[in-house]
Amino acid sequence: MPRNAVGREIPGEVGGRPVRPFQGAFATVPEGRKAAPPLKTLRPGEGKVLPSLEEAIRRVGLSDGMTISFHHAFRDGDLLVLRVVETCARLGIKDLRLFPTALFPCHEPLIRYIEEGVVTRIEGSMNGPVGAFVSRGGKLREPAVLRSHGGRWRAIECGEVHIDVAFIAAPTADPYGNANGMWGPSACGPISFAVADSWYADHVVVVTDNLVPYPALPIEIEQGYVDHVVTVDRVGDPGGIATGTLRITRSPTQLRIAKLAADAVIAAGLVREGMGFQAGAGGISLAATDFIAKEMARRGVRAAFAIGGVTMYLADMLKEGLVGAILDGQAFDARAVEFLREHPRHQIITPGFYADYNSRGCATYMLDFAFLGGTEVDLDFNVNVNTHSDGQLLHGIGGHQDVAAGAKVTVITIPTIRGRIPTIRESVTTVTTPGEVVDLIVTERGIAVNPRRPDLAEDLRRAGLPVRSLEEMRAEAERLVGVAKKPVFGDEIVALIQWRDGTVIDVVRKVVGWE
Amino acid sequence: MPRNAVGREIPGEVGGRPVRPFQGAFATVPEGRKAAPPLKTLRPGEGKVLPSLEEAIRRVGLSDGMTISFHHAFRDGDLLVLRVVETCARLGIKDLRLFPTALFPCHEPLIRYIEEGVVTRIEGSMNGPVGAFVSRGGKLREPAVLRSHGGRWRAIECGEVHIDVAFIAAPTADPYGNANGMWGPSACGPISFAVADSWYADHVVVVTDNLVPYPALPIEIEQGYVDHVVTVDRVGDPGGIATGTLRITRSPTQLRIAKLAADAVIAAGLVREGMGFQAGAGGISLAATDFIAKEMARRGVRAAFAIGGVTMYLADMLKEGLVGAILDGQAFDARAVEFLREHPRHQIITPGFYADYNSRGCATYMLDFAFLGGTEVDLDFNVNVNTHSDGQLLHGIGGHQDVAAGAKVTVITIPTIRGRIPTIRESVTTVTTPGEVVDLIVTERGIAVNPRRPDLAEDLRRAGLPVRSLEEMRAEAERLVGVAKKPVFGDEIVALIQWRDGTVIDVVRKVVGWE
Repeated sequence: MPRNAVGREIPGEVGGRPVRPFQGAFATVPEGRKAAPPLKTLRPGEGKVLPSLEEAIRRVGLSDGMTISFHHAFRDGDLLVLRVVETCARLGIKDLRLFPTALFPCHEPLIRYIEEGVVTRIEGSMNGPVGAFVSRGGKLREPAVLRSHGGRWRAIECGEVHIDVAFIAAPTADPYGNANGMWGPSACGPISFAVADSWYADHVVVVTDNLVPYPALPIEIEQGYVDHVVTVDRVGDPGGIATGTLRITRSPTQLRIAKLAADAVIAAGLVREGMGFQAGAGGISLAATDFIAKEMARRGVRAAFAIGGVTMYLADMLKEGLVGAILDGQAFDARAVEFLREHPRHQIITPGFYADYNSRGCATYMLDFAFLGGTEVDLDFNVNVNTHSDGQLLHGIGGHQDVAAGAKVTVITIPTIRGRIPTIRESVTTVTTPGEVVDLIVTERGIAVNPRRPDLAEDLRRAGLPVRSLEEMRAEAERLVGVAKKPVFGDEIVALIQWRDGTVIDVVRKVVGWE
Repeated sequence: MPRNAVGREIPGEVGGRPVRPFQGAFATVPEGRKAAPPLKTLRPGEGKVLPSLEEAIRRVGLSDGMTISFHHAFRDGDLLVLRVVETCARLGIKDLRLFPTALFPCHEPLIRYIEEGVVTRIEGSMNGPVGAFVSRGGKLREPAVLRSHGGRWRAIECGEVHIDVAFIAAPTADPYGNANGMWGPSACGPISFAVADSWYADHVVVVTDNLVPYPALPIEIEQGYVDHVVTVDRVGDPGGIATGTLRITRSPTQLRIAKLAADAVIAAGLVREGMGFQAGAGGISLAATDFIAKEMARRGVRAAFAIGGVTMYLADMLKEGLVGAILDGQAFDARAVEFLREHPRHQIITPGFYADYNSRGCATYMLDFAFLGGTEVDLDFNVNVNTHSDGQLLHGIGGHQDVAAGAKVTVITIPTIRGRIPTIRESVTTVTTPGEVVDLIVTERGIAVNPRRPDLAEDLRRAGLPVRSLEEMRAEAERLVGVAKKPVFGDEIVALIQWRDGTVIDVVRKVVGWE
């Protein structure tokens, strides 16, 4: 089997579809044209509001083998995916391809529908139980496909994925289909993940629990793309948005990593008037951003912009004048949602604006630096964010690839040991983001600088920061906890990990045991 | 030659392109798919700012026979069209097809470039001298094509017009191409007319006199669609925006018309909580809106929304709480621009959102009533807004067709005599908007109700309003000023008037003299 540019074996085709192997972060020159959705019309007076999801499913002609899409703005509070799949099951529809931006632990009941053949394919991030199920070889007719935020937008835009029906959970909508996530009892922040779905799907169904008089403002989803509007009792639980570690860490090890990461960025001369950065939402990233904020205040410099996922910490930086604008694709807490309503320089952006490879430039390309995490890194600076060291597929890509590819300095923050397992590997279990777009790996033991960036190594050394090799740090960790066991994989490919340009950077195989 | 649904002779093809005759306001069922622009990419670090318009023209490979597009947000203060055409002429480029949203008197110098063969085709509105020149049979290689705001969007979207290079005048832009019309020394209000151009053109050049640090907010034109950014000393003169009669009329005749129009709408029961309306920007429309505003205040009802062209009068209604939202596609004065910055319910919309026939519903379809003008009306309730009674092509369509097609009650306000010429004709010189979408024609002599709307006739009579026939009012006017002379037309077709769905509702022929 041929190997791609990060040395992974990639089959020539999967499920009858040709697979393009990853050839380098910017090797692909796109050819051809964007997808061309069908022309439609509507006469004045024709309404869109339907009495039930079931009625909408019938009206759009949803049937066996079709692709249905969803956004994940409610994260672990999503209610719509299961509701639609259950309704389809009840109507006897099967063999669906699920195309969510991301699934969360709340979607565990999907497993039943996979086992029953209602859902037979998934293209989208799978955080938690559904991913674990897929890892165990769970019954999908074709391997799952994981894409970054930008990669998913690109796949829709270029026709790689054709959506038959987009279901869009909308905290606020009007009877003509204009919708947003900023208002209403279920306000969840931007729902702009669904914009590409609305543009390119054959049919678009907006589902809301807050139908307001025309026009619902702001307009994230536009009336002109929406076929039907359905009201439900509850469209999602905003309480499920704030999952994971969305607070500044209090762990001394993690705080040390955050401090080193911040110091590295400062040493590289990147904390300056007019900078742009991505904060991230993990505990270490938030702590590092907090250190940066303090340094900015000390120096009296102001960032031109920050990109989110947005937390209250970032919102506060805008409020305090430390950041000139927030480009917001996703809210991570209620304060971020609230702030979005109030501040004109807190701007909703789409994943296309944020991260589309097939565009004339995306927002991540304007980043000076970004803090990102990972489950593992390796000696080639490759980063894994998808699988754990036991081989299980438990996380999506999110914006990881998009940000790493774009930022002038990409900083991976990672403790060398996590749950008694060393995280620096000779070779990562799964390559999500290639070493060529990773500049610094910061652990509690020091900072590894990618050999492609001798300039950074010099900056850091001059600042007295502990520049170390990954090999050294790896050896120290392994002396403490031993070499990690490796999972035993079967032959079966259960998931493809796409690079943001649509090539395949790695595959995930079925886990069958341990070494 | 076959006749279309309003009885006009329409050739089967023009300039080798087939022509579809108008068959009724909603007869067209669109087939096929949207246009598919080429996929592109850009690497991080690649810049977009070029030192001159000339350099941009070279870089995009602009050459003979290509189509170049422009928006008209500066109206009579536009500086870019001529600057680009002059530069093309200097570079020896010829046979250009000009695809502006609209031309104004300031574009008179274009005539020289038409005579020299630099510009050989125009598709777009021509207000004033260029239209008159075209009427006289002036030298275009193919007939001009006039479209409504929605029609132009549709034409781009479905590939009827392919734009090679879009030049977008931007009062504010950042180096990555994000642009808006809300800020900067040349702020002109929305530049959203250019959004479709940016989406579908092969090449997009943003031209600004106010280059700001990334990101320029709000984002009307998105970076991902922009190839190059050029700075110039001055991109447009906002002083040229407020052309024509953008003040409430003081003419007693016009005030009488405005009062009757307002009374008709009130009598029809349309002034009620939650209504939506289009105000228009002519002196009569503004006066009628003012009467409506007073009635709203008296009754304590609030409109859900109004659509603009936006003047200070409408902005004030939002401020006073009489209107819940303004959907704004075009600013008609400086106060409207200012207000756009300040008020979150004053929302920029695109012509697609406003008026696209090939969409799942546009904003004009939500209108309860609208006040529109015309140069002539006829006994079939057809309205002419393009030519004068002397046959000269002097005006664009604007949103006239789109609004008339959408509003539940379309009110045409028109004095029966204008410059000693009677405006009610047996048959209009040019059909812009067909009688089937016109409900009331209001003159200083009374209100004509379209026979399709007996319900309205009853409402108006019950309210004691002077319901009269067009024949009567026409006869009265002709008794005063005589029957209007008619122009003598040659065979040559100088312009096609499209209905918003892409069919041809009328043609304009070369004027060769008078009866």
